Amino acid sequence: MANIPYKIYLEESEMPRQWYNVRADMKKKPAPLLNPGTGQPCTADELKHVFCDELVAQELNETDRFIDIPDEIRSFYKMYRPSPLVRAYCLEKKLGTPAKIYYKFEGNNTSGSHKLNSAIAQAYYAKKQGLKGVTTETGAGQWGTALSMACSYFDLDCKVYMVKVSYEQKPFRREVMRTYGASVTPSPSNTTEVGKRILAEFPNTGGSLGCAISEAVEAATTTEGYRYVLGSVLSQVLLHQSVIGMETKAAMDKYGIKPDIIIGCAGGGSNLGGLISPFMGEKLRGEADYRFIAVEPASCPSFTRGKYAYDFCDTGKVCPLQKMYTLGSGFMPSPNHAGGLRYHGMSAILSELYDQGLMEARSVEQTSVFEAAQMFARVEGTLPAPESSHAIRAAIDEALRCKETGEEKTILFGLTGTGYFDMYAYAAYNDGTMTDYIPTDEEIAASLANLPNIG
Amino acid sequence: MANIPYKIYLEESEMPRQWYNVRADMKKKPAPLLNPGTGQPCTADELKHVFCDELVAQELNETDRFIDIPDEIRSFYKMYRPSPLVRAYCLEKKLGTPAKIYYKFEGNNTSGSHKLNSAIAQAYYAKKQGLKGVTTETGAGQWGTALSMACSYFDLDCKVYMVKVSYEQKPFRREVMRTYGASVTPSPSNTTEVGKRILAEFPNTGGSLGCAISEAVEAATTTEGYRYVLGSVLSQVLLHQSVIGMETKAAMDKYGIKPDIIIGCAGGGSNLGGLISPFMGEKLRGEADYRFIAVEPASCPSFTRGKYAYDFCDTGKVCPLQKMYTLGSGFMPSPNHAGGLRYHGMSAILSELYDQGLMEARSVEQTSVFEAAQMFARVEGTLPAPESSHAIRAAIDEALRCKETGEEKTILFGLTGTGYFDMYAYAAYNDGTMTDYIPTDEEIAASLANLPNIG
Repeated sequence: MANIPYKIYLEESEMPRQWYNVRADMKKKPAPLLNPGTGQPCTADELKHVFCDELVAQELNETDRFIDIPDEIRSFYKMYRPSPLVRAYCLEKKLGTPAKIYYKFEGNNTSGSHKLNSAIAQAYYAKKQGLKGVTTETGAGQWGTALSMACSYFDLDCKVYMVKVSYEQKPFRREVMRTYGASVTPSPSNTTEVGKRILAEFPNTGGSLGCAISEAVEAATTTEGYRYVLGSVLSQVLLHQSVIGMETKAAMDKYGIKPDIIIGCAGGGSNLGGLISPFMGEKLRGEADYRFIAVEPASCPSFTRGKYAYDFCDTGKVCPLQKMYTLGSGFMPSPNHAGGLRYHGMSAILSELYDQGLMEARSVEQTSVFEAAQMFARVEGTLPAPESSHAIRAAIDEALRCKETGEEKTILFGLTGTGYFDMYAYAAYNDGTMTDYIPTDEEIAASLANLPNIG
Repeated sequence: MANIPYKIYLEESEMPRQWYNVRADMKKKPAPLLNPGTGQPCTADELKHVFCDELVAQELNETDRFIDIPDEIRSFYKMYRPSPLVRAYCLEKKLGTPAKIYYKFEGNNTSGSHKLNSAIAQAYYAKKQGLKGVTTETGAGQWGTALSMACSYFDLDCKVYMVKVSYEQKPFRREVMRTYGASVTPSPSNTTEVGKRILAEFPNTGGSLGCAISEAVEAATTTEGYRYVLGSVLSQVLLHQSVIGMETKAAMDKYGIKPDIIIGCAGGGSNLGGLISPFMGEKLRGEADYRFIAVEPASCPSFTRGKYAYDFCDTGKVCPLQKMYTLGSGFMPSPNHAGGLRYHGMSAILSELYDQGLMEARSVEQTSVFEAAQMFARVEGTLPAPESSHAIRAAIDEALRCKETGEEKTILFGLTGTGYFDMYAYAAYNDGTMTDYIPTDEEIAASLANLPNIG
């Protein structure tokens, strides 16, 4: 085996030319999206009111194993990709583990995360369709930032509905979006009917992601030349994010490295799904075996304590129904939760893979996540996003297990992004004021009691 | 010539093993540091009260052309270096210029800038000397963050005196420093005699960099096992930063690229000096010719409107005297100045090179700097630091000149860092409230009237 450098960069010529569609290798496919009105599978025509035509086709495509990455998207990828596959020599030394730890680092771009991989694809297809612009929602602003960058590149309008409390208290990502030319509207707003209704009823509300989604969907479907875009959960997003796993596998193959355990944080599943896709494909085809571990917050435990059932993708209940691991569309993580990954549901693809026993999941508490984040920052240099730090926590735990058993396992995890816009959460950890919260069985049962009566 | 990729990364094995000391190739050397008490050149023993022994040796070394980079520092460099040399294809296209534009991007690390290159070296030598820790000052926190990361890696104490108004109004970098284990004290503070004196006289002051330097130097020289470290201006810092230029030259040589114009922003000169060093060496030895352009803010124009004279390096007047281009140690840029590069003086090496006519300088106004920053962010993806954007402005101007003349010049500039912690300044630009200020001749003359009467 060649000497492994700290950072493995593929050559530009070695970058993936296709996305990998893991559904093609799944014998049992994810359940279809349902129209909430009829209870029947959504047709392409129904979805085209909300999403771009080509993205609808990708959303419904369960058979093509590979889909070409258009040249325009590959050109954009070349500005910030390939992302490095890093050997965590310093973390290994700090832990005193015989395990070999690698991470795929997606944070070296201004959006600060992997979200850009799908944002640029979605913006490209919108432009190709001749649309004027796209709408979306954002909470703290990671996805909104990525979409703003992508729309700026293709000269598309970008309307972002940002949860009002984030808009006011976390102005930095808002300003990044404005620098990229996006219009950022605090939600709820007077620009939509649903926003007006909510403001009339709750004039002092700080907003919610559910409300912002409803406004963004309304704005897209009532404005000529606009469509709505979403940064996670959807199968099209996992398809685009497969570039993470494709690059990782190419880099590992180049150096003859085979991971034993592959770990990713899981909110809606876009990073985890993207990272594991090509490896999962090998497992599905019986060519190789890997352990996959999804890591989620104990305060929002969709996989580990949710139910596999049809549910709404949004709290506003305007989107199609999806079969997934869910805590109920009304579930809200405790206000003390600072670690991101707040989504009540999960990617349909990952839900099905988990249900088939092809993947493990575990939940971790946020103080232990920030403990891992701080250790990682100090020894590996990069200050990680709270979301990514869930994967770091699990990777450290697995490496410490190897230390006990003496096994020289190879651990790979996804470092999805940086925490530069999350310093309030780090401040709480530094000050010792961060606390944990685990929802009670009663809370989860109450939320699950409101699932739609389908499937 | 080979096809040029968007990003050129050297292999780990191609990374520089030595720093380059440009003073070795200068026939006329920079003027020596002077002891402010005696007016005589500082001896090594005098400097060793303030700085680590080995760094004093580097500061005074004018003869060794190359100095080995210790293995421990090279290991740390491998975590975030080599930094990419980027071909700005998208910017070229946007400008419609026949010029070829390259930038060396130093922002892909958690400190967000090139400062880490010298921080890790200074921390290493402090550790090697068996010291307990180091002290420094920081304004917005770029240098403090870099030093915190470096000290964390070598398990050294790191005491940062942070200008109080920044400590209170810009808490994010403060929290990054704390995450890396540094103690961060708002300055002026009651922890030093000079701080107490200032607080007694001005109880409500927001502090200043000059005051923070004085506190940091006092803390270092009165605490057993501590020394003071500085992030720019000094010749040792330019030596460490030569890693930027060495990598750039190696990457360009690999692809047969020869720059015509090399551009860098200039505050204290650490990035500019580091980037141009090996190219300047060729020019000094008569092996090649290049145009070098230092770009500084119109509101703090040391090169373009300052005087080449001995002056204090700090407003507190506790440090040695240095011969340099200076606006006077009491000069303060106008409060509306948001673009960084606020230092009143300049590296002694760069000052001497400029005085010999080997380098050009120009000043630019901040609204035009942010205009360039926004354009760059939108087409090249990366949101640049305000400091770096001075170089972007000049590179764009040179590229537009090529468009007029039809010349296919190759332009190289240093992109020193990212602007993720500078979003207040971007917000002012986005809101249209940013203004320019050019100091009057009378203001500059008044400040220069207080130069020490030496040399």
